[in-house]
Amino acid sequence: MKIDLNCDLGESFGAYTIGRDADVLPLITSASIACGWHAGDPVIMEKTVRLAKENGISAGAHPGFPDLMGFGRRNMTLSAAETRAYILYQLGALDAFCRSAGTPLRHVKPHGALYNMAAKDPSLAAAVCDAVKSYNPNLIMLAQESGHLYKEAVKAGLPAAAEVFADRAYEEDGSLVSRSKPGSMITDPEEVLQRVLGMVKDHKVTAITGKTIELKADSVCIHGDNEHAVEFAAKIRKTLADSGIEITPLYNII
Amino acid sequence: MKIDLNCDLGESFGAYTIGRDADVLPLITSASIACGWHAGDPVIMEKTVRLAKENGISAGAHPGFPDLMGFGRRNMTLSAAETRAYILYQLGALDAFCRSAGTPLRHVKPHGALYNMAAKDPSLAAAVCDAVKSYNPNLIMLAQESGHLYKEAVKAGLPAAAEVFADRAYEEDGSLVSRSKPGSMITDPEEVLQRVLGMVKDHKVTAITGKTIELKADSVCIHGDNEHAVEFAAKIRKTLADSGIEITPLYNII
Amino acid sequence: MKIDLNCDLGESFGAYTIGRDADVLPLITSASIACGWHAGDPVIMEKTVRLAKENGISAGAHPGFPDLMGFGRRNMTLSAAETRAYILYQLGALDAFCRSAGTPLRHVKPHGALYNMAAKDPSLAAAVCDAVKSYNPNLIMLAQESGHLYKEAVKAGLPAAAEVFADRAYEEDGSLVSRSKPGSMITDPEEVLQRVLGMVKDHKVTAITGKTIELKADSVCIHGDNEHAVEFAAKIRKTLADSGIEITPLYNII
Amino acid sequence: MKIDLNCDLGESFGAYTIGRDADVLPLITSASIACGWHAGDPVIMEKTVRLAKENGISAGAHPGFPDLMGFGRRNMTLSAAETRAYILYQLGALDAFCRSAGTPLRHVKPHGALYNMAAKDPSLAAAVCDAVKSYNPNLIMLAQESGHLYKEAVKAGLPAAAEVFADRAYEEDGSLVSRSKPGSMITDPEEVLQRVLGMVKDHKVTAITGKTIELKADSVCIHGDNEHAVEFAAKIRKTLADSGIEITPLYNII
Repeated sequence: MKIDLNCDLGESFGAYTIGRDADVLPLITSASIACGWHAGDPVIMEKTVRLAKENGISAGAHPGFPDLMGFGRRNMTLSAAETRAYILYQLGALDAFCRSAGTPLRHVKPHGALYNMAAKDPSLAAAVCDAVKSYNPNLIMLAQESGHLYKEAVKAGLPAAAEVFADRAYEEDGSLVSRSKPGSMITDPEEVLQRVLGMVKDHKVTAITGKTIELKADSVCIHGDNEHAVEFAAKIRKTLADSGIEITPLYNII
Repeated sequence: MKIDLNCDLGESFGAYTIGRDADVLPLITSASIACGWHAGDPVIMEKTVRLAKENGISAGAHPGFPDLMGFGRRNMTLSAAETRAYILYQLGALDAFCRSAGTPLRHVKPHGALYNMAAKDPSLAAAVCDAVKSYNPNLIMLAQESGHLYKEAVKAGLPAAAEVFADRAYEEDGSLVSRSKPGSMITDPEEVLQRVLGMVKDHKVTAITGKTIELKADSVCIHGDNEHAVEFAAKIRKTLADSGIEITPLYNII
Repeated sequence: MKIDLNCDLGESFGAYTIGRDADVLPLITSASIACGWHAGDPVIMEKTVRLAKENGISAGAHPGFPDLMGFGRRNMTLSAAETRAYILYQLGALDAFCRSAGTPLRHVKPHGALYNMAAKDPSLAAAVCDAVKSYNPNLIMLAQESGHLYKEAVKAGLPAAAEVFADRAYEEDGSLVSRSKPGSMITDPEEVLQRVLGMVKDHKVTAITGKTIELKADSVCIHGDNEHAVEFAAKIRKTLADSGIEITPLYNII
Repeated sequence: MKIDLNCDLGESFGAYTIGRDADVLPLITSASIACGWHAGDPVIMEKTVRLAKENGISAGAHPGFPDLMGFGRRNMTLSAAETRAYILYQLGALDAFCRSAGTPLRHVKPHGALYNMAAKDPSLAAAVCDAVKSYNPNLIMLAQESGHLYKEAVKAGLPAAAEVFADRAYEEDGSLVSRSKPGSMITDPEEVLQRVLGMVKDHKVTAITGKTIELKADSVCIHGDNEHAVEFAAKIRKTLADSGIEITPLYNII
């Protein structure tokens, strides 16, 4: 039994720092690295790719909307041609640092509003997958199994990895409960750990309605926003390891 | 005897159009394509790479300073690490469209103020060449033979191609006469054509002082700004062809 | 009987030119000037405000989404606080050039997707009006009478001016027929002129369903995109003037 | 005897936080607020202006180069027309939040590379002052007395305030010792406090050469980058107050 632990990295920008990248690196197996649009800049991208390589972490691209001021979290209406071109641009930009550092680019995980919109919109998801496939058909698409991004990746013949969230409540259809609804976040640490174990070992989780649903889990999303998040990520890792689950990069799983 | 004709392309942005790209494409053999920083956007980059491929034009990257408002023509003071990362970012971004379209990226020509500053500053030039080499050591650096960008490319072991300008006056050291000085532009069309022939066939041109200087010419820079520029580019091409000079992409010359 | 003729101006950016501003200026009475977000830059804003002043044209602000790459035409989801702050920022920025030139800022007309979204969304419209009112409660809001932007301006106590479109078809509720539907554009020049006269003189127009609807007309929107548009704007102006309608800035009407 | 204490505020951006604004506000009398170009965004500008008003702090504009990625610390070569327009744009944008909040804009202090370049370049300094004067001739220019920005402000008839730095070494001409030189920073806390007292009370400081120089001190620049800086700012304030010096906003001094 294997699982990947992924985290968004390299989201600092210029003089601005966000995230405890150095602290979270020893805990994860895959890094989704910002590509300079919603966050990140070329100097930080180069540094982050090098850190990932030095720590033996698998590198992935984390492309987002052209909205630094909104950190890529605001919905934008893009055409399929725009989406395709924006993804290609960001993939190539990040891959330049991977090529230069001599470490392969392995996966793609869209960021924020792009990730959420693509999960719900098959044509947006198809445009993202079209770009990834035309760039490198071996790149793994990291997305929730229940959403259209995962489904379109499978349809396009891309390797697809299913992402689960440790501290978020699920609807019965496997989508996340909107943050605006009560109960959307699981706040009890012990409950979070039990849910992670359940998702990874049994591919099951209790939806917000109380019903048990099935879901695929290839990678658990970890946060590195602050000291507390990093400490908790360490606990998740330890819990998984103590249960005999091998923690290994996506390319060993998919 | 062979010569390449190069032109900057893909410098439109969003709703804004600059340059007669479609008209100039049949005249040239190498296109230096903007990478979204001083000009260009991903949709235009994708379209321009495809147009180049369809017209059998060799594709190159035209990276610039992060200064869309100044069209990359204003000096900026960057560190070597910043320069290196900015070049890598733009190379990768453009190359994504080349890979997606199935056409190779062949050369690099920095834009505007970056081109001019690198010609005069060995350490800036070295940072540019360092980035290019670490991305792909087979990329041809296109620059004036007299400047440091060309010299650092040779030092780094990159293939280097010498660019000449049809309508610009030269100083005795092979550098261009500053546009702010009288006589910097050659305005007589017949004189321009004779100078081009002289540079390409004899590797000689008359400097602004009257002295004849030697200079290498692998590629002539052509402009596509307006109807007049395109018409004149056609004359340059015809004059070269009528003199028995083969017009062919850089990769057949270097 | 009075009417204002308005046009969007100052939408060039850096080295990029859009619109025949100099040609359209003699035809209009109010200019909605881009504020550097969807289009325009400070140098162009200063120049456009001066041109407006020299031509006796009333100056207004034309704020848009932070989306230069999409020319402000793509929907973005902003919070009320973001909308309010973005409008204030752009109003102040443009007003700086008005103050410096000694010409008053008179009206506000949001641009593109912001204009369209605010027409349909009362809370977005209220955030725009809140910003305008807190900056200067004498600024005239220019919007379609049928939309929420106009209604919220009235509710907020801002002077509101009703804009009509010469070449667009109307739904029965006074909104514009979406460009994606057949018949959305009126292409017969004679019909356009008759419709303008009808809207201005009788406050009536035939909706796409064939039904005659009533609508208020304080200002007709004129385009200056190309030579053809400018010529047609001249015809609209002549037709109105020949019918004895006084063409005068908004502040003489509202 | 009076002195102003100023600090750069509002330099966060979107999801990114820089500076302990809330902690430093009770210590200062004037805030130089970023205008969205080198740092800051409209939401943060609105919030910062309100915080300043609530704390009785005088509000100033802190305009910078269009270089968010470089935090406005990198030299850029702008024309006088560009400089003038960029300053006007930023002044107006910030002033919109002051007008909306009902608190007057009192001073201007350029940021980073723009501040340093204007100190050394009379024509750049004149362009900055030209913009400020044409916007509002009562705005106080805050700059080092030894530099051209201060001198051009005086020449233009703008009120000018002399800024001193607590922890920086001075050359004999009153300019700051470059950070790249040894001894540029005064690191002994006690020495810093004595130097501040000397500059404020006696208008004298010991240059790096050992020579005592005279300099005008209307305002001491305070830093709020981190907890340590804020604590030290509190000590500077206490030392000044204990010496019977009145700490009061610039507009009570100039």
